[in-house]
Amino acid sequence: MKKFNIGILGATGTVGKEMLKILEERNFPVNRLKLLSSSKNKGKEIKFKKEKHIVEETKDDSFKGLDILLCAVPKEVCRRYVPIAVQSGAVIIDNSSQYRLEKDVPLIVPEINPKDILKHKGIIANPNCSTIIALVALNEINKYSQITRIVASTYQAVSGVGRKGIQELEKQVQDYVFGKKLEANIFPEEIFLNAIPQIGTFIIKNGYTEEEIKMVEESKKIFHNEFIKISCTCVRVPIFRSHSISLMIETKEEITKEKAKEVLSKGDGVKLLDDIENNVYPTPKNSANQDLVFVGRVRKDISGTGLNLWCCGDQIRKGAATNAVQIAELINEV
Amino acid sequence: MKKFNIGILGATGTVGKEMLKILEERNFPVNRLKLLSSSKNKGKEIKFKKEKHIVEETKDDSFKGLDILLCAVPKEVCRRYVPIAVQSGAVIIDNSSQYRLEKDVPLIVPEINPKDILKHKGIIANPNCSTIIALVALNEINKYSQITRIVASTYQAVSGVGRKGIQELEKQVQDYVFGKKLEANIFPEEIFLNAIPQIGTFIIKNGYTEEEIKMVEESKKIFHNEFIKISCTCVRVPIFRSHSISLMIETKEEITKEKAKEVLSKGDGVKLLDDIENNVYPTPKNSANQDLVFVGRVRKDISGTGLNLWCCGDQIRKGAATNAVQIAELINEV
Repeated sequence: MKKFNIGILGATGTVGKEMLKILEERNFPVNRLKLLSSSKNKGKEIKFKKEKHIVEETKDDSFKGLDILLCAVPKEVCRRYVPIAVQSGAVIIDNSSQYRLEKDVPLIVPEINPKDILKHKGIIANPNCSTIIALVALNEINKYSQITRIVASTYQAVSGVGRKGIQELEKQVQDYVFGKKLEANIFPEEIFLNAIPQIGTFIIKNGYTEEEIKMVEESKKIFHNEFIKISCTCVRVPIFRSHSISLMIETKEEITKEKAKEVLSKGDGVKLLDDIENNVYPTPKNSANQDLVFVGRVRKDISGTGLNLWCCGDQIRKGAATNAVQIAELINEV
Repeated sequence: MKKFNIGILGATGTVGKEMLKILEERNFPVNRLKLLSSSKNKGKEIKFKKEKHIVEETKDDSFKGLDILLCAVPKEVCRRYVPIAVQSGAVIIDNSSQYRLEKDVPLIVPEINPKDILKHKGIIANPNCSTIIALVALNEINKYSQITRIVASTYQAVSGVGRKGIQELEKQVQDYVFGKKLEANIFPEEIFLNAIPQIGTFIIKNGYTEEEIKMVEESKKIFHNEFIKISCTCVRVPIFRSHSISLMIETKEEITKEKAKEVLSKGDGVKLLDDIENNVYPTPKNSANQDLVFVGRVRKDISGTGLNLWCCGDQIRKGAATNAVQIAELINEV
């Protein structure tokens, strides 16, 4: 069996660490492992399959000999290093938004558009976390009858911005209990006991945020459907892990609730958790720390002809790290 | 000036106490004040305008001589006492869902349908908290061009179920910080660090919850529009106070974002908080402990012909107590 020389750029971050964990969990055929970070974290020891690895500072010659580079760093850092890594012959799986909408960069959710990977020219992009979770939830319905419209409202966990988001909520919880003044540095307002309808910066001309437009544009590319109409309201909530999304969808042909539940129950990467007689539905808590997107509250939209659904998924795993490792597995299969 | 003999049924509860506070704040012309509760709370002292009042146990003869009875008790308790109170000659302003959809019971949001009060036969109903907040946010737009469709997703605070909800979240926060096991008694799951897509019990035949159908049915009655189409997903989030709602609306004639913001800026009971260039928008924190419904994130829905909006309002005040006192003021004006 072929084994791969794997690099992780951003190995000490929330997503980078999770990538390492998932490579191990899924027993990905790793030959050599290179853990890269900023100078701040160089020299740190990280275990992989019981062996200690030393984190190295990223330099222009860090990528030599790598087959695959998993990138879990901000897009500014990607811009700096990805072209060099491509040059050195590695295939890049990039979790940032830097290259997602570029023509020659496949944007992959393995359950949905695995074959797009064949078109890559060195860079493969991992979609935005909310986009992955929404589209995995909707994929089977879209295959049964093409989705024409999505109206989404999200409930996004603080770990969407990485460790700093988790630390800020944790500190606010502690400060609240010990009667201290709450400080907001990472999020635009206190996130504890609050909901903030802004993720990313605003696009002044249309009033949407960057995060909202990611779902709009990325979904078109992943579903191969430039005509799908999507609007989205992205909201940060005081939850550590797992994003939730309230969805209203419309399809070419009308689908009954029963048929929707039937196709969802057989879907790839998705778990139907919908038994309202016993109060069973997805929540951030029951969907965290695993790889499936949970879908429930499936019902006819009584304001139109479509359906309403509620889905939850762990955005650090399926929304980022697991999806990236699944893409690496696709490379292995090609 | 006429002064009224006022009773509060449920005077020791979260909404009942807030009603008392708001009667005082708004300087409502109170003659005699009667504070009623279950036997458990009888004898408690509560201050109103610097005077101590003793809470009495509710009995069949408790309502004699009252002009107005504000009810802030569960609907089972309403069923027991409201008919007796009507018989005794009081006008009832009921915060429960018991009578809201009955033909002879006006369902009033004073900013929207004040004249409906003239039709009352002893009972006037206060709408559901989310309904009040959504409709106050949408009223001016509806007047400009009739709203034909609403798709709503809510972010509802724990105080929606009263003091027990606040206490449960508070205890879970404390238990989390002190490393204890979290217990869920009031909500179906742990609410701290979670989002629960169930408020009220499920209606098995259509898959909606009671809370969701309240918005559907009550909105038709308040807007005098039986054709308005509404779907709703109601979600409990770990926030103490102030509900938020993500709204997609469609109107008879298309409205520009600029026109929507213009009519909202002149609206009654509503405050436009929408300056995305400076990251200004409503949140539960900035909208709590006051009476206006804050609206922001106003934009064209890029999936259709309508608008998207985000609104927040204090559901104990405008969503319950303030709206009830405003109804009492309407009675005073009639």
